[in-house]
Amino acid sequence: MYVVKSPLSDANLATVSEALQGALVDLVDLALVAKQIHWNVVGPRFRSVHLQLDEVVSTARAHSDTVAERAAALGVSPDGRAATVAVGSGIGVTPEGWVDDSAAVRSIVDALGAVIARMRERIAATGEPDPVTQDVLIQVAGDLEKQHWMFQAENG
Amino acid sequence: MYVVKSPLSDANLATVSEALQGALVDLVDLALVAKQIHWNVVGPRFRSVHLQLDEVVSTARAHSDTVAERAAALGVSPDGRAATVAVGSGIGVTPEGWVDDSAAVRSIVDALGAVIARMRERIAATGEPDPVTQDVLIQVAGDLEKQHWMFQAENG
Amino acid sequence: MYVVKSPLSDANLATVSEALQGALVDLVDLALVAKQIHWNVVGPRFRSVHLQLDEVVSTARAHSDTVAERAAALGVSPDGRAATVAVGSGIGVTPEGWVDDSAAVRSIVDALGAVIARMRERIAATGEPDPVTQDVLIQVAGDLEKQHWMFQAENG
Amino acid sequence: MYVVKSPLSDANLATVSEALQGALVDLVDLALVAKQIHWNVVGPRFRSVHLQLDEVVSTARAHSDTVAERAAALGVSPDGRAATVAVGSGIGVTPEGWVDDSAAVRSIVDALGAVIARMRERIAATGEPDPVTQDVLIQVAGDLEKQHWMFQAENG
Amino acid sequence: MYVVKSPLSDANLATVSEALQGALVDLVDLALVAKQIHWNVVGPRFRSVHLQLDEVVSTARAHSDTVAERAAALGVSPDGRAATVAVGSGIGVTPEGWVDDSAAVRSIVDALGAVIARMRERIAATGEPDPVTQDVLIQVAGDLEKQHWMFQAENG
Amino acid sequence: MYVVKSPLSDANLATVSEALQGALVDLVDLALVAKQIHWNVVGPRFRSVHLQLDEVVSTARAHSDTVAERAAALGVSPDGRAATVAVGSGIGVTPEGWVDDSAAVRSIVDALGAVIARMRERIAATGEPDPVTQDVLIQVAGDLEKQHWMFQAENG
Amino acid sequence: MYVVKSPLSDANLATVSEALQGALVDLVDLALVAKQIHWNVVGPRFRSVHLQLDEVVSTARAHSDTVAERAAALGVSPDGRAATVAVGSGIGVTPEGWVDDSAAVRSIVDALGAVIARMRERIAATGEPDPVTQDVLIQVAGDLEKQHWMFQAENG
Amino acid sequence: MYVVKSPLSDANLATVSEALQGALVDLVDLALVAKQIHWNVVGPRFRSVHLQLDEVVSTARAHSDTVAERAAALGVSPDGRAATVAVGSGIGVTPEGWVDDSAAVRSIVDALGAVIARMRERIAATGEPDPVTQDVLIQVAGDLEKQHWMFQAENG
Amino acid sequence: MYVVKSPLSDANLATVSEALQGALVDLVDLALVAKQIHWNVVGPRFRSVHLQLDEVVSTARAHSDTVAERAAALGVSPDGRAATVAVGSGIGVTPEGWVDDSAAVRSIVDALGAVIARMRERIAATGEPDPVTQDVLIQVAGDLEKQHWMFQAENG
Amino acid sequence: MYVVKSPLSDANLATVSEALQGALVDLVDLALVAKQIHWNVVGPRFRSVHLQLDEVVSTARAHSDTVAERAAALGVSPDGRAATVAVGSGIGVTPEGWVDDSAAVRSIVDALGAVIARMRERIAATGEPDPVTQDVLIQVAGDLEKQHWMFQAENG
Amino acid sequence: MYVVKSPLSDANLATVSEALQGALVDLVDLALVAKQIHWNVVGPRFRSVHLQLDEVVSTARAHSDTVAERAAALGVSPDGRAATVAVGSGIGVTPEGWVDDSAAVRSIVDALGAVIARMRERIAATGEPDPVTQDVLIQVAGDLEKQHWMFQAENG
Amino acid sequence: MYVVKSPLSDANLATVSEALQGALVDLVDLALVAKQIHWNVVGPRFRSVHLQLDEVVSTARAHSDTVAERAAALGVSPDGRAATVAVGSGIGVTPEGWVDDSAAVRSIVDALGAVIARMRERIAATGEPDPVTQDVLIQVAGDLEKQHWMFQAENG
Repeated sequence: MYVVKSPLSDANLATVSEALQGALVDLVDLALVAKQIHWNVVGPRFRSVHLQLDEVVSTARAHSDTVAERAAALGVSPDGRAATVAVGSGIGVTPEGWVDDSAAVRSIVDALGAVIARMRERIAATGEPDPVTQDVLIQVAGDLEKQHWMFQAENG
Repeated sequence: MYVVKSPLSDANLATVSEALQGALVDLVDLALVAKQIHWNVVGPRFRSVHLQLDEVVSTARAHSDTVAERAAALGVSPDGRAATVAVGSGIGVTPEGWVDDSAAVRSIVDALGAVIARMRERIAATGEPDPVTQDVLIQVAGDLEKQHWMFQAENG
Repeated sequence: MYVVKSPLSDANLATVSEALQGALVDLVDLALVAKQIHWNVVGPRFRSVHLQLDEVVSTARAHSDTVAERAAALGVSPDGRAATVAVGSGIGVTPEGWVDDSAAVRSIVDALGAVIARMRERIAATGEPDPVTQDVLIQVAGDLEKQHWMFQAENG
Repeated sequence: MYVVKSPLSDANLATVSEALQGALVDLVDLALVAKQIHWNVVGPRFRSVHLQLDEVVSTARAHSDTVAERAAALGVSPDGRAATVAVGSGIGVTPEGWVDDSAAVRSIVDALGAVIARMRERIAATGEPDPVTQDVLIQVAGDLEKQHWMFQAENG
Repeated sequence: MYVVKSPLSDANLATVSEALQGALVDLVDLALVAKQIHWNVVGPRFRSVHLQLDEVVSTARAHSDTVAERAAALGVSPDGRAATVAVGSGIGVTPEGWVDDSAAVRSIVDALGAVIARMRERIAATGEPDPVTQDVLIQVAGDLEKQHWMFQAENG
Repeated sequence: MYVVKSPLSDANLATVSEALQGALVDLVDLALVAKQIHWNVVGPRFRSVHLQLDEVVSTARAHSDTVAERAAALGVSPDGRAATVAVGSGIGVTPEGWVDDSAAVRSIVDALGAVIARMRERIAATGEPDPVTQDVLIQVAGDLEKQHWMFQAENG
Repeated sequence: MYVVKSPLSDANLATVSEALQGALVDLVDLALVAKQIHWNVVGPRFRSVHLQLDEVVSTARAHSDTVAERAAALGVSPDGRAATVAVGSGIGVTPEGWVDDSAAVRSIVDALGAVIARMRERIAATGEPDPVTQDVLIQVAGDLEKQHWMFQAENG
Repeated sequence: MYVVKSPLSDANLATVSEALQGALVDLVDLALVAKQIHWNVVGPRFRSVHLQLDEVVSTARAHSDTVAERAAALGVSPDGRAATVAVGSGIGVTPEGWVDDSAAVRSIVDALGAVIARMRERIAATGEPDPVTQDVLIQVAGDLEKQHWMFQAENG
Repeated sequence: MYVVKSPLSDANLATVSEALQGALVDLVDLALVAKQIHWNVVGPRFRSVHLQLDEVVSTARAHSDTVAERAAALGVSPDGRAATVAVGSGIGVTPEGWVDDSAAVRSIVDALGAVIARMRERIAATGEPDPVTQDVLIQVAGDLEKQHWMFQAENG
Repeated sequence: MYVVKSPLSDANLATVSEALQGALVDLVDLALVAKQIHWNVVGPRFRSVHLQLDEVVSTARAHSDTVAERAAALGVSPDGRAATVAVGSGIGVTPEGWVDDSAAVRSIVDALGAVIARMRERIAATGEPDPVTQDVLIQVAGDLEKQHWMFQAENG
Repeated sequence: MYVVKSPLSDANLATVSEALQGALVDLVDLALVAKQIHWNVVGPRFRSVHLQLDEVVSTARAHSDTVAERAAALGVSPDGRAATVAVGSGIGVTPEGWVDDSAAVRSIVDALGAVIARMRERIAATGEPDPVTQDVLIQVAGDLEKQHWMFQAENG
Repeated sequence: MYVVKSPLSDANLATVSEALQGALVDLVDLALVAKQIHWNVVGPRFRSVHLQLDEVVSTARAHSDTVAERAAALGVSPDGRAATVAVGSGIGVTPEGWVDDSAAVRSIVDALGAVIARMRERIAATGEPDPVTQDVLIQVAGDLEKQHWMFQAENG
């Protein structure tokens, strides 16, 4: 049986692993949602929204990898499978089909807002038990809040 | 209501869009499954399997984008959301938790095999109605079969 | 007198060379038309349309080179001179002067639509006599249809 | 006391150094103003305006460096300090706070227009006394007029 | 109605816009002619001439873009459409079909010579009304005269 | 009226936005001061000081962008205009004219010292209300202190 | 005993594997022959022929790798050993020793012609049993026919 | 006598400088140990272990530079000499001579474990006196723990 | 008749040209053998062996080019044709078909050993007659011995 | 007899060709002189002076190529042979042997000063007969005057 | 027990392995000493000395890797551990603490001098038994002697 | 008085420094001669000869720098001034004016032949006194002999 000896106490590890697993699910879903809208957006702002969404995808993919490997580094198996994501994500349902650009912007603003709120709770929860994990989540939140601003500004 | 006038007849479009939507779901899931094993693999071949799986992820992500945008180009809204993928993928369930390297290799061999079999059916189905789509799927199959060989060879 | 011994029969060569010469003229004109609108577009979407049109230019230039050299490879002299293009292009007249962004998008959607329709006929005509040429034209059509979708979505 | 022996006569040097110092102040301010709007713009064209303004910043920064070092090469100390810029710039006051995208475009069109008008006077003044300096200012004016056109076209 | 307020007087603008429109037509045609010969040249010097002609194409394309956008920057709509080019170019008719390498070199020497002569007239005409435009045309002439020399030397 | 809903309470937002606005002004001024000395330094160490100062400029410019966009992400309009900087910067007056290399080094050591002291206060103030902002300021301080050391060492 | 389960029926696999093994031998030999002439060519066109031949080498090496790995992907062991190549290649004997440039061009034209003819037969044979393999061979033929044209034109 | 005025109180400086000096010695030794095993490893996993160890070397070298320059920035002379490292490192003795791959993996797992444990103590100690230093050490720990996981997984 | 006047005496030239021709044949065969195993290897170490062999291919191809052109530089026609290689190589027969990873490693260890032994004899033979050639062969031997070590260590 | 038909009248050509030939000789010598001091400088500023001189070499070499090819483009054979340069350069004799850093700086300041003075005369002489050549010389003078300033500042 | 069959006789191997192990220890220490001074140097030449020392570090690290892997290639286990280096290095003790720039230069001149003297003995000793190793050491000596000159010149 | 303590005895140093100074003069002249012909060549092979000569220039410039700095590393002041080169070069007089391509090739073949002959004498002379210098000259000779072959082959 494979066991990594974690540098954290059991209680701290429980807190931190919950935060990381939650962050992983949110980030994997964020990448899928942003790609979905990236493909389905229509309207006069198609190009701007289409391209800006791909930056969200890149950010979410890079951070999901970091978060999952941070869990592994603490001896916790990360779970980023489709079914797990479909059930556990903090992002509401994205409607199917074409979406006009204004609705697309509102949709990603909502998705980012939901993920950011949960990420800030995780930052608060992990600072004490594991500042290394907290620092990872701070980077995530900073990047998501920047994207959040840019789509809100696009809403103007 | 947004409508792209498709260059295909309705019947042909139905065939082609089913093939593309199916390919999209399989490829998105393949990327998620390969990442899942990439994070959870353990054993003496960890590094080789971990790195080779990231090539599968890159291939699957690039092709899923091409396939989804090919659907959009034909006037068909692509659906790559987590719930759609969780339900519709041709890949069997990936077990949770750590996986030793031999099982990891078998698992990705099976996943690739399942996707390839369906992709070959789609190649057969689309040649007549839309050779442009068929050519996209041929590229996909060629890349997946190369990965399939390399993991089978790793099984030796 | 310079003669390349073509690998095709005379009848097949006639079919294929007509397809290639037609594709060449369309692609050279598409690059000129896209540049013309790239320079003359005005309106709130100036930057998006201006930049997206340069992607059409790059695509059309690259493919026109491939198509012309494919003709040469079959022993057929390609003709991409301005007068030939002015007379033979499948794209309708582009009006002179400034063009607002909505009209610009409609204009390039029409131009791409006209070229794509002819390109699909050429794909159908060349598959039997020369699958190598057909494959070139399939790549061309795939790229043009992607641009076509993006401008139609911009019209959204 | 540090003295560079200038290749110009005193009268010519006076003319040229005034032109260069004026250009320096205008260009430093242009970079600051463009960054200010880059951060504060909101509205449906946020992304296009935000990105295009960063091209103005890059252009203005590169040219301010060239202009300042051209002054130094003639033995004239350049002055690009904040207080000097705040007082001497040819650009009118940029209002504080968020700015909607249409106002942002008008604002940068005005700023560029003001700088260009002064730059053209400097080109006229320096041709006789120092064609090397004039050539630098011609490059500056050419680049600014290109940006000016693109924002005017965006106003469309 | 879209109007860019030009920094030039009406009389100067007329002179300068004629020069730019003429230069644009010549450069677009030069790129087409050079590509035509690039594809059709045969003979022992095929590779040298084929490759050198692509440098002419690159130069002509880059300068045509600069010239067209310079016109736009002055408020003048540029016209680079195939029919305009076919009628207005200063380059004589390029014969159809294969061309042996010596004739190819003579042909491009003539084409470059014709464009250079007209470009030098434009330099003379624009210096007074707009030194910024003149500087653009000087760069164009310098690059074309370099290509002219290299093909003349090849004729040696 | 454009309003970003900030993730922070009003009190916390007041503290954090004051820190970010202060940091922005200091960093914009630091870039201007470092460029000023970069152009005006003379003496046997000219090259070393000239080049090292450009690293300060790059660092200060990059961080001012991050800091301003962090403010925007929290719903606070950043102000980096010349007049604001001239009044609000924590850096003392930089004398006009040429400066010998030893004085140049002392001058930038003082400027960096002043900014660092204020930046450390901001780090202390923002840790509680917004750890994401604090992390940004910690990166800023770390980079400035590295530059501070290198110029102090140069003073030897 | 290592066995890859091929996605093809036995009959189809026999056809496809024969095509791939034949293509592999031809391409390995083409690379060796082109290098041989690359080293041994002399005459006034030395540089052009020497360099153009290295493009043939690059093309042949890249395609031989793709073809061999395509065979492996179908469960067929590829054989590219020197003795196999010496016996099975479709290219006639290349004479030893120095070769003047005209003979060198004729020699590579013949070699390319022989390989292309066989490659076209393989394209015809594989389309039905395995369109993925056929697509690989179409790419090969397209690239070789382009090289064939350029050397024929050089013969011009 | 060269003195940098540290931004920290004497007590805080003592704590922080001890942490940085300790980290420096550990990181320099880690780079030496990882190179030692990189050169001496033998066994079926040679290539994987050999390459993965070079990533440890790169990480350790980059961080040792950052840590040493952080000490200098606080006015503390860093000491990374061989004798200091040989005496002060937290890593146990690495045996001389060839080492089989399994022992190599265990050896680097132990070395990383020892350094990580000390690094976590330093993170705890420096948060209060100097958050800038703490942030540096958090980055170090995060990278080392990632390597630690990958070698443990290899042990799997 | 083409003759390069060699800088060596006839006796020295005979020695050196024999060494170079022998080295050429060995290196061309080494590249073919390494590619053959690269395609045919199977087993748990597939990825490591497959990739490491491609480094041997790159090394052997680069050196074969250098060696052949060194011969040409001395006025000696190099012979790297398949039949010459099949007969003259110092490497024993590589069996056809799939090869498990351990046998693959042994096979390439033997091939490298055979080539190295002959290369060392050539180094000894050429030092006196032509130190320039000897230096080329020393580089070859150094690179091959490094590969030899890495595969022996893999055997470990 | 090879003759390029120059676009200039005979009188203008005489003026311009004298300017270009003079510029060529000065620039070739400047590159040689700067390299000579680059190799021979000693003293505490060795590194700064050594590196800065290589920037002079790069500038002088690039401009000498442009100037020579500009002459050729006008039908004038350029002469940059060592003997021509040794006799015709405007730079005084550089003493042999090691040179301390202060003398090195003075030496290159003098060399640049001499070349600049002559280059400014050439700018004045060529504006009328050939503005294209004048523009080339303006670029040369601008770059040399920048280097001149930097070495004068180093003299401080 | 792992044994590489060395291509050298036992006596030759003893000589060569002693040379390589000695070179390894010297080069590892040289990198540590150069980094130590790189961090601790102060004085008006800080930047030049700081940067130049990092070139020594890069050179020493690259060569230590080559030398260690050369030993391994001959079947000799290399030893680059801190304790081995601390005891066996040919470089004298580097004093702790800050070092002014002149002393820093003298220190590295001495260190390079000591290593070079020993390296030249190794070149003399290895030429007969193993010219491949000798060639490696010649490259090392050439690079170190270049650095030696530059620091001696800096001493000027 | 600046003195580098050379690692060589006085007698050996005299031999080696004569070789290096001679090589420097030949290489500087070779670069000048190759550039001279590069600018003045005319004829049907203009492009091939023009480009190939620039490779000679690059090679000669890179080696002249290495050779000069090798002299400096031994404590010998290198002399690469125009007058020294004009008098001391081993290359015969290059005639002024345009040169047809065949004569150009013969001219550079002669120049390379002259330099190579002297370089081989220097290799023979320096092996005993300084193998490091000899190795530098062997690299030089190898590169020049390769160029020599290519121009002889061009002579065919």
